[in-house]
Amino acid sequence: MKAKEASVYLEQVRTQNPLIHNITNTVVANFNANGLLAAGASPVMSDAPEEAADMAGAADALVLNIGTLHPEQVESMFTAGRAASRKGIPIVVDPVGAGATPYRTDTARELLKQLEVTLLRGNAGEVSAITGLESDMKGVDTSGDRKDTAVIAEHAAQTLGIPVAVTGPVDAVSDGRETYQIYNGHSMMAKITGSGCLASAVAASFLTVSDQVVEAAAAALGFYGTAAERAEGFAANQGPGTFQVELLNALYHVGELDLRQSLNMKQVTNDDE
Amino acid sequence: MKAKEASVYLEQVRTQNPLIHNITNTVVANFNANGLLAAGASPVMSDAPEEAADMAGAADALVLNIGTLHPEQVESMFTAGRAASRKGIPIVVDPVGAGATPYRTDTARELLKQLEVTLLRGNAGEVSAITGLESDMKGVDTSGDRKDTAVIAEHAAQTLGIPVAVTGPVDAVSDGRETYQIYNGHSMMAKITGSGCLASAVAASFLTVSDQVVEAAAAALGFYGTAAERAEGFAANQGPGTFQVELLNALYHVGELDLRQSLNMKQVTNDDE
Amino acid sequence: MKAKEASVYLEQVRTQNPLIHNITNTVVANFNANGLLAAGASPVMSDAPEEAADMAGAADALVLNIGTLHPEQVESMFTAGRAASRKGIPIVVDPVGAGATPYRTDTARELLKQLEVTLLRGNAGEVSAITGLESDMKGVDTSGDRKDTAVIAEHAAQTLGIPVAVTGPVDAVSDGRETYQIYNGHSMMAKITGSGCLASAVAASFLTVSDQVVEAAAAALGFYGTAAERAEGFAANQGPGTFQVELLNALYHVGELDLRQSLNMKQVTNDDE
Repeated sequence: MKAKEASVYLEQVRTQNPLIHNITNTVVANFNANGLLAAGASPVMSDAPEEAADMAGAADALVLNIGTLHPEQVESMFTAGRAASRKGIPIVVDPVGAGATPYRTDTARELLKQLEVTLLRGNAGEVSAITGLESDMKGVDTSGDRKDTAVIAEHAAQTLGIPVAVTGPVDAVSDGRETYQIYNGHSMMAKITGSGCLASAVAASFLTVSDQVVEAAAAALGFYGTAAERAEGFAANQGPGTFQVELLNALYHVGELDLRQSLNMKQVTNDDE
Repeated sequence: MKAKEASVYLEQVRTQNPLIHNITNTVVANFNANGLLAAGASPVMSDAPEEAADMAGAADALVLNIGTLHPEQVESMFTAGRAASRKGIPIVVDPVGAGATPYRTDTARELLKQLEVTLLRGNAGEVSAITGLESDMKGVDTSGDRKDTAVIAEHAAQTLGIPVAVTGPVDAVSDGRETYQIYNGHSMMAKITGSGCLASAVAASFLTVSDQVVEAAAAALGFYGTAAERAEGFAANQGPGTFQVELLNALYHVGELDLRQSLNMKQVTNDDE
Repeated sequence: MKAKEASVYLEQVRTQNPLIHNITNTVVANFNANGLLAAGASPVMSDAPEEAADMAGAADALVLNIGTLHPEQVESMFTAGRAASRKGIPIVVDPVGAGATPYRTDTARELLKQLEVTLLRGNAGEVSAITGLESDMKGVDTSGDRKDTAVIAEHAAQTLGIPVAVTGPVDAVSDGRETYQIYNGHSMMAKITGSGCLASAVAASFLTVSDQVVEAAAAALGFYGTAAERAEGFAANQGPGTFQVELLNALYHVGELDLRQSLNMKQVTNDDE
């Protein structure tokens, strides 16, 4: 993907100002809302079953994040997910902590099974836990090796039958055949809470402007990673407090020129399948 | 209102350090608590029915914000609201998202119907949704035109029988007869989440030091808008991350001198009713 | 305690990267997660009964914070607490708002009664409310006098039979016989929400690297207070927004050299008991 194409997606988000319905965790709700606003989208957070269908029906995309899940919220996720499919808007699932407890792993799997999910976005450990990759592929390092996120994303996409984004030091987005590796980003992202959650929400906002899920998600992660690089450029090792502030600033300011200078991704097509 | 009078209210808040009980949404809880602390009040967030009455009974004002409402929280709002009235402390209702779903619109209307609400504070769309203004007054632009917030606030105050504050590019506070228009503020407020919610909480803290609801609410919004102007003065287009930090700084530092330099409001008395 | 010893604890936290399971309030969840990350620990926030035991069983320490308690969360606290004891990991209780409502005071007491709590960390008012100190010791100023936090901590430790940390302008940690007074910190900590909650979480992370509870808690508070001093050194009276950002930065950067320059605590052994 060229920077030009990624910046077209970004400009469309900023022009169309899509409403993103987030059923998300209490830890990152504020940061994600501010991140979406900064990037040009409109956030709404709501997890009451009483309004789940109405809110999803009013939105342009739905994000289901299980970071602080509980039964009533999970009920809302299913209700909102079905409403989203009726309306035909994209659904992004963020399986925070899948693998850490059976409740999380099982809930993530059920969401993927019962709903028409557009994109799964997690880290290597979470996505591997969902697909059971550990038992299938001994020796795969899920802690962030460059090659591995692509392998994990491709395997998960083939197993689940939907596009999957795996973020880490190198991000990967795959539909099982076509895979993007995104080299943008900064290690400080691991020092603030919710940076992965916000990646999912930003990806959802890009999915509202294109049906090309893999391309749009890759563009979103390239934009997000470019913003992180710019943020640490300004934060200059002052620490994670400043980095978080500068990340919001960068999501607001990064434009085509920044993407031209910094966007760094590679596309691989697997014709062996 | 003169800057002198607004700064008297502000100083009283800082001296008396009123305890503000917030039953509020999970997105802005942290930002609102920090904003109240910065302005000189003491926040407490609590939404369990088990302690709703006790907490409201210990507080100097109550804020009911429906931003992430659910049935148990709404139950707490009614319980706390009745306890607040028994104690005689002001109640501010913030109808976040009224109009977006029937659950929100209905809940906001029930709170206003069943409780002795002192002030309703929302944006043009939320307040209009509650009073059904769209159907009554076709063509009213609720997106923030200068004249309109005053019209909407005055109409809502007359319809509901209580003072109403409508915030936007120009804020308005009205009891249906007397209306203040407040020209302070900055467009960056729309780029961070919770800036409206915090306006409601700051207004509640000003209501603890005066029975003159319209005047006190107008002073609160003038103070808040002045802080926003100062904040962006320091943030200097670095972005919404920095603006949010500087807004907390400004709420802490703005004093009489700033209000003298910046406070910009107009009072209109409608004698035609 | 020498700075050398405190910095050994700190380095162990940063090397071992302990997983801290927080069942905590919605106001500070984000700030505490970021604070733990900055200090070198790994946070996980979860309060669903469905996974309370699993999550505590996967963690290295458990923090139970009642800042926005509700019955289901309290149920999770007991379940997680029992799982923590089975695994033998430390449990820190933060009784936010004890004394403000009977629900909070009673819940804090029950947690302390039914669970094997390693450390109670609160402010003077909260700890006194739990132990009923007001009625026993008329005239004790719980608002932060230097001598009083030590008296309150020692009395509470003797009454409850566990180590107690009382934070304020001067912090104190006591097991009833040995008491540390920590003079580090800054008054700006009272101007941001969650600074006490984060003190509890940081203390929990230090307890994962040592069985010497009083020493480790004192080291944690000395480190935390040193970070606050450094933070305000950089914030330079810009206000609480900047202070909060700089506190996260300082938790990330403070090391042995800072502790050598700034750590300021005193140990008192009470042999009269």
